[in-house]
Formats: sequence, C-alpha cells, structure tokens
Amino acid sequence: MQPSEKALVPFVSVEHMMQLVHHVGLDAMLTGIAEAIEQDFARWDRFDKTPRVAAHSAVGVIELMPAADDAHYAFKYVNGHPRNTREGLQTVTAFGVLADMTTGYPLLLSEMTLLTALRTAAMSALAAKHLAPKGATTMAMIGNGAQSEFQCRAMQALCGITKVRLFDTDPAATRKCMANLKDSGLDITACDSPEEAIEGAHILTTCTADKRNATILTDNMVGTGVHVNAIGGDCPGKTELAAEVLHRSSVFVEYPPQTRIEGEIQQLPEDHEVTELWQVFAGTAPGRTSDRQITLFDSVGFAIEDFSALRYVHEKVKETGMALPLDLLADPDDPRDLFGMLTRAAP
Amino acid sequence: MQPSEKALVPFVSVEHMMQLVHHVGLDAMLTGIAEAIEQDFARWDRFDKTPRVAAHSAVGVIELMPAADDAHYAFKYVNGHPRNTREGLQTVTAFGVLADMTTGYPLLLSEMTLLTALRTAAMSALAAKHLAPKGATTMAMIGNGAQSEFQCRAMQALCGITKVRLFDTDPAATRKCMANLKDSGLDITACDSPEEAIEGAHILTTCTADKRNATILTDNMVGTGVHVNAIGGDCPGKTELAAEVLHRSSVFVEYPPQTRIEGEIQQLPEDHEVTELWQVFAGTAPGRTSDRQITLFDSVGFAIEDFSALRYVHEKVKETGMALPLDLLADPDDPRDLFGMLTRAAP
Repeated sequence: MQPSEKALVPFVSVEHMMQLVHHVGLDAMLTGIAEAIEQDFARWDRFDKTPRVAAHSAVGVIELMPAADDAHYAFKYVNGHPRNTREGLQTVTAFGVLADMTTGYPLLLSEMTLLTALRTAAMSALAAKHLAPKGATTMAMIGNGAQSEFQCRAMQALCGITKVRLFDTDPAATRKCMANLKDSGLDITACDSPEEAIEGAHILTTCTADKRNATILTDNMVGTGVHVNAIGGDCPGKTELAAEVLHRSSVFVEYPPQTRIEGEIQQLPEDHEVTELWQVFAGTAPGRTSDRQITLFDSVGFAIEDFSALRYVHEKVKETGMALPLDLLADPDDPRDLFGMLTRAAP
Repeated sequence: MQPSEKALVPFVSVEHMMQLVHHVGLDAMLTGIAEAIEQDFARWDRFDKTPRVAAHSAVGVIELMPAADDAHYAFKYVNGHPRNTREGLQTVTAFGVLADMTTGYPLLLSEMTLLTALRTAAMSALAAKHLAPKGATTMAMIGNGAQSEFQCRAMQALCGITKVRLFDTDPAATRKCMANLKDSGLDITACDSPEEAIEGAHILTTCTADKRNATILTDNMVGTGVHVNAIGGDCPGKTELAAEVLHRSSVFVEYPPQTRIEGEIQQLPEDHEVTELWQVFAGTAPGRTSDRQITLFDSVGFAIEDFSALRYVHEKVKETGMALPLDLLADPDDPRDLFGMLTRAAP
C-alpha cells in the first residue's frame, strides 16, 4: 500500500542539501537566506519567541529551538558535545522541521548542520551590511575552523569584501581554509598572529572554539571605525573579547534575553545598552552613525534565523524537488480508523 | 559519495511501524511498551522532566515534549488541530526522536501517531493492572474513536479483560470498533447508552473527543469497587467526568503539575490529594487498598511514556532492521572541514 500524499513529508538529507547549494549557487543561497532572515527580523513582533529548551548532561547539551509566526512553525534540534571529536564524531549536529501553523502538519524535515553554517554566515553578513564602514574591503578572520569559509564567502557575497586575512593558533586550520577558498576570487593572506591579521581590516571576525573566557581581541587591537563580528562567544563561560572592547563599541544583538546569558555581553552589567538588530533592519533604530564608531555584532544564533533558513529551503525544495518523500504521518482513510489501517497492513 | 555510518539515523515510517507491530505481535508490543514505561516510571527521579513547549494559534497547537535520563534523550512533536478533519487531515499527528545523551547524536527518528496510540493504551492497561479490582473481566468503552480498539486490546493483553461493552454517540464509530475487534477473542456488546455500557463493568474507560467540559460519567453511574480509566479529559477546558466522581475516587496521575492543568482534576482545588503512579509502580505508594474503593486514572499523557515507547522501538529496530537509514547528520572526514565536504560534493 502506497502512503497517500498527505502522509509524506519532504526530507532534505545532507546529500540533498549539498546538491541544493551547488544547484542554487553558494552566493545566491547565502544571499537568499540573508534576505529571508532580514524579512523575518523586520516583522519581529509577529513571532512567538521561546527560549531554547535544553537538556544538560556532564558531557554536553541537547537543545530544541522553536519559533513560530502566524503561518509557520519551526524548530531545530541541536547538540553540543565537545568530547565527540575524540571518537570521530561532530561536536555539533543539527536537524530541523518546518510546519504549517494552520494544520500542524510538518512541511519539511531537513539536516541543519550545513544549514546552520550557512545561516550563521548569512546573519553575520547581513549585520555587517548594515553596520560595517562604507567601502569595507578587508576582513580579518580569526579562527579558521568549520565556520570560517562560510563567513568569508558570505561577507564577499553580501558586503563586497575582497580581501581576507586569516589567523588560527593551528596553522593546519589556516591551510585548510586557504585551500577551500582558493577559487573564491578572494585575495587571501595567511597571518602569523591576530595582530597581523587585523592590519588594515575593516571587519574583524572572531570565530574560535575555545570553551572558556578567552581574549582573542584585546582593547588595543580594535581601532576606531571598524566592525567587529563576534561569532565564537556563544554560551555561558565562553567569550572572545576584552570587556574594554565592548565598552568602546555600539553593541548589536539578536535577542537580548538570550545574548545577555550566552554572548560577549555576559561580561557586562545586565542593563548595558544594546541595540536589537531587528530594529535596524526594520528602520526603527540606527545602525552605524559615524565613521569613527566601533560597531559590534555579538552573535549567538537565534531560533528565527533557523526558521528563516528552513522557510528558504522549503521554497527551494518546492522549486527543485531535491528531497526524499518520507512516510512520516499516519493517514488512515477515516481519521477515526487508525486501528483498521494497522489491521489492513498485516502481511 | 556514500554517507558514512555515523551520518545515518534509522527512520521508522508509518509503514515500518505497522510492519513492526505485525512482526512483534500487537499483544507483545503493548506488553513490551507497558514494561518499558513501568521500568522508566519506577526510576522517576532519574529523569529530567520538562513541561511541554507549546505554540498556539487560533486553530490549534504544536507541542514539543522532551524527556531525558542519563543515557537517553527523547522528544515528541505533536499537533492538535480539530478543524483538520474537514479537509481530510488528522487532528493529531506525531513523530519523535530518541538520542544518545553521551554524544547528542539521534539514534532513531520515528512516526509517533501509531506509537502514541500504542503507548497511551499500554499506559492505561499498566495503571489498570495496578489499580483495577481483582478478577476484573469486563470493561465499558465509552467513546469508540481512534484510541478505542487499542484500549480494548491492551486491557485484554495486560489485565485479562474478556468482555467489552461499547458506546459512542455515533453508532458508526461503534460499528467500526466492533469490526476491528471481531478477531480479538473479546466478547463484544454494542450498547445504546453509557448507562447500558457500564452495566456489570469493572473498568470504565472514557475516551471521547468532545472539546469541552462534558459529563460522560455522572455521579450515580459510578458504583463502588470499579476502576475509572479517564483518557479523554486531556487539555484545559476538556473534561469528561462529574466532579462528584472525582471526590469519591482515589485519583492517580502521571505528573501532577501537568495533570492539574490538563486532566479531570482541573475541576478540583489545586491541593486535592492525588497519588503519583510512579510511586505505585516503585512500590512506595499503595495502589488499590480495598474492594469498595473507586480508583481513577486521570490520564493526560506524559513525555516519559513517549521516551519509553521510543526506547522500546529502538531495541526492536536493532533486532529487526525495520527502518530506513536516513542521511540526517553531516559527517565530514575532518570535523573542521564542513566547507571542504560541501565543495567536494559538487556535481
């Protein structure tokens, strides 16, 4: 017996997601996801915003991140288990679901390890588009791990960055990043220190994995007029910037209740002034207001970004069919006859 | 490129779940799920218990129900959209995930529309096994919808019920239920009224769908010494029993903070005495203590039951292989080289 159409939910595997990126084109996909995020952030008040729901153990955390508007519901499942790499497993894996608020039916099940990397980079570039100094051409990329190439490509696609200056404490990471970007058209320089990496940079991106309060950028490394894109400080006890940098900057955040716990500003008093990015996108709060201002995006990742990314992928799946139909939902001919459906399925 | 083993998560479709039920046998599966629930309830304090996370709209609700112990994490996605039936869709659909707490990796993705029906019936029968009068042979089944056959079969398999007396306001539902149970070995009587259905019954099961405060069982319908299995009252504003019945009964519940909001006892003061079933299963609280006592299970459904059901299915999938491997997790050779994996997947 073939399941009916109503029982089927499109599934985007890792393989399908990679095919989709190559089909759409990485630049177009980053740009498209950034547009979806910008649209969704601009109608911020229409969203049902829930804090993450976390289950902690001694070795890691599993989180559910839901968000909904009138039309759609989305959640992401994401884990964080730093010791996984010892066994050849990923520290972070993720998948998510987009659903129809009118029927409660899932519309899409998707891998989200790759999609999270794409939406995080799209979000950074979107923030930089609004905040970076005019004519910015050069980005320092400190931390050359799994997110670094996505950051470089998104800043190139959305903000016109032409030069990236790479640094990582592990030169192998920098070599990997350079190799992955060799056909990107970016002018790439491998640097021997963070100080060398930030020379002449208009955007300073920090994306290191050290799970402690580190100081990747000290106060004297951050000159006037730059944009700081702080990705790595994203959970309690994990920060990358000297508090002095934060005090000299105009700080922009996704969702203050979450960022004050997880972001760089966990180092600051709870009432430290921040600007919510959705207000900048909606035009109700200023972004950069002077050439000498230091703008700083304290990125931690918010559920609406996943919502937007899933919404974008759902549209692309409808266009391309790049998904596998999964028999996820029971669909008996008579809704009251679930048992009869089961009985009739006997071999 | 084939995804590696680590990237694959077994998926139990509706079709696979039906195959699994027929392979294991319905009685054995109901019994097995009940045993899993009994084991998990008996170690109640080991669980991280979180309230459901709900997203409401004008026409329905989507909920995530997580639960975790030291070894496993599980969540269920479930919607409730009463108007769906107008468009030939299910009111409730569900799916869930079991994951490994040590790595955060999903172990199983499963349909849970059928599985929820199975675990709800298993939980009812498990409660009745501890609470119903000794030698109970006859059950009244009031409300003959999608859950009714599962209830009858579970009470037969776990509690030795041999006779069921059916009533529904819609005779077509009763006819459907009778037809589905015709080969069960149960002695089945279709009744014209709830009063007729409860004649001689030792267990009174109510499972109606009316979304309001209804009175399926009035005070004078419930005699001494019976066990009431109240399934249908399961959300705010939806109850099935007269408050007087509750006052005369010993009330047993899954998780009081949830049942006081969603169950029959929403009609009673917040401090009304209830017994938690896990204590009965663990032997730290009495179940039935006299022949004349009315015991009442105020069932609303709790996340640990889904956890137990998924744990059971995961074991059976390991034994039988009845699942489809899904390429859900990105697994690059070098965890830091997600971008390289994407690049190498270019067509």
